[in-house]
Amino acid sequence: MISDQGEPTTSLYDAIRMRRDVRAEFTGEPVAEQVLQRVLSAAHAAPSVGMTQPWDFILVRSPETLQRFAAHVADKRREFAATLPPERADTFDPIKVEGVCESGLGIVVTHDQTRGGAHVLGRHTVSDTGLFSTVLAVQNLWLAATAEGLGVGWVSFYDEEVLTELVGIPAQVRPIAWLCVGHVDKLQEVPDLERLGWRHRRPLADAIHYERFDG
Amino acid sequence: MISDQGEPTTSLYDAIRMRRDVRAEFTGEPVAEQVLQRVLSAAHAAPSVGMTQPWDFILVRSPETLQRFAAHVADKRREFAATLPPERADTFDPIKVEGVCESGLGIVVTHDQTRGGAHVLGRHTVSDTGLFSTVLAVQNLWLAATAEGLGVGWVSFYDEEVLTELVGIPAQVRPIAWLCVGHVDKLQEVPDLERLGWRHRRPLADAIHYERFDG
Repeated sequence: MISDQGEPTTSLYDAIRMRRDVRAEFTGEPVAEQVLQRVLSAAHAAPSVGMTQPWDFILVRSPETLQRFAAHVADKRREFAATLPPERADTFDPIKVEGVCESGLGIVVTHDQTRGGAHVLGRHTVSDTGLFSTVLAVQNLWLAATAEGLGVGWVSFYDEEVLTELVGIPAQVRPIAWLCVGHVDKLQEVPDLERLGWRHRRPLADAIHYERFDG
Repeated sequence: MISDQGEPTTSLYDAIRMRRDVRAEFTGEPVAEQVLQRVLSAAHAAPSVGMTQPWDFILVRSPETLQRFAAHVADKRREFAATLPPERADTFDPIKVEGVCESGLGIVVTHDQTRGGAHVLGRHTVSDTGLFSTVLAVQNLWLAATAEGLGVGWVSFYDEEVLTELVGIPAQVRPIAWLCVGHVDKLQEVPDLERLGWRHRRPLADAIHYERFDG
């Protein structure tokens, strides 16, 4: 369903359930500009420590850049595979780790710890809360894309220096994520890593503690 | 509106717009167990690197613990205020930084980098992706609470060692956030830090770049 403003009315809880980390299901159909702007607005509405909004978004569609990044990711994939004991290597083998070229759009999310100047309200005690703010924006982006019927895949098989160089990120800014974003033929119901036997989900009850961690 | 499963049907986009970082609006009315479980399920449905689900949630309601934490936050607030030039100190003075006791419920979110063992798929290149996973869970929690009509306030005026000791967090686990969660008399339309003149929001267009950071 679509609201009067042209937005999907997907409920928050449905978006959270439908959201997947997508690799294999991208169709390559271009994302409409209006949809992309809504998704980026959602990211930009995330909370941030001291209202610093320390994130930036680099939209990458150049086939040459996508291919160069995909080749780097392939190297890093081989590097990881080589560290695995044989049984894990066999499980890892069929798992796709990126859809960089197939999605047709990479969104590089970056973090600028200098934004907000010398006195960032709420960051003097826990410096990483700056970084955390940028990650909160990623989750808003991911859920909004899901509500729009798009898939998102967070690629982390890369060296930060290589990505920094590839898209010209300045020295005080850190790349946090490469997100493949695009239309999909479907969203899987079960996460890839569970479906392909890499790892099973933990029961929620195990994650909840009362009053103290050992409580 | 409520679905057949008893869930609010709040749209994702509305939840993103309504979400605030709450300090002053908590009523203290207890959160129903069923609602709290839905909110924690939403957090637990977040993506995580290598499907490690490295988060845990400590639910703190003991008035003594809440008071001890609030007292520590008050110390840290004074410490920050003392670093500010006079003009900023005047702006900071009326800004409330926590609702620890008023909310009646603290959720301490923690991160365990050892979860998932030696070979975490996707974390060999960017070690912080573990930490990022836990932060993604926080944003799911925040949006779900908003959809449920609750307020959430992320308190970061604390020393990690003090919080670790206060709620018995083991050595390999790091506290990431203290979230005040509770019923509110309203959610503000404009973020506190903007309403009270601390800082203004950045236009989205400034955060979007094409092909390269300087593009």
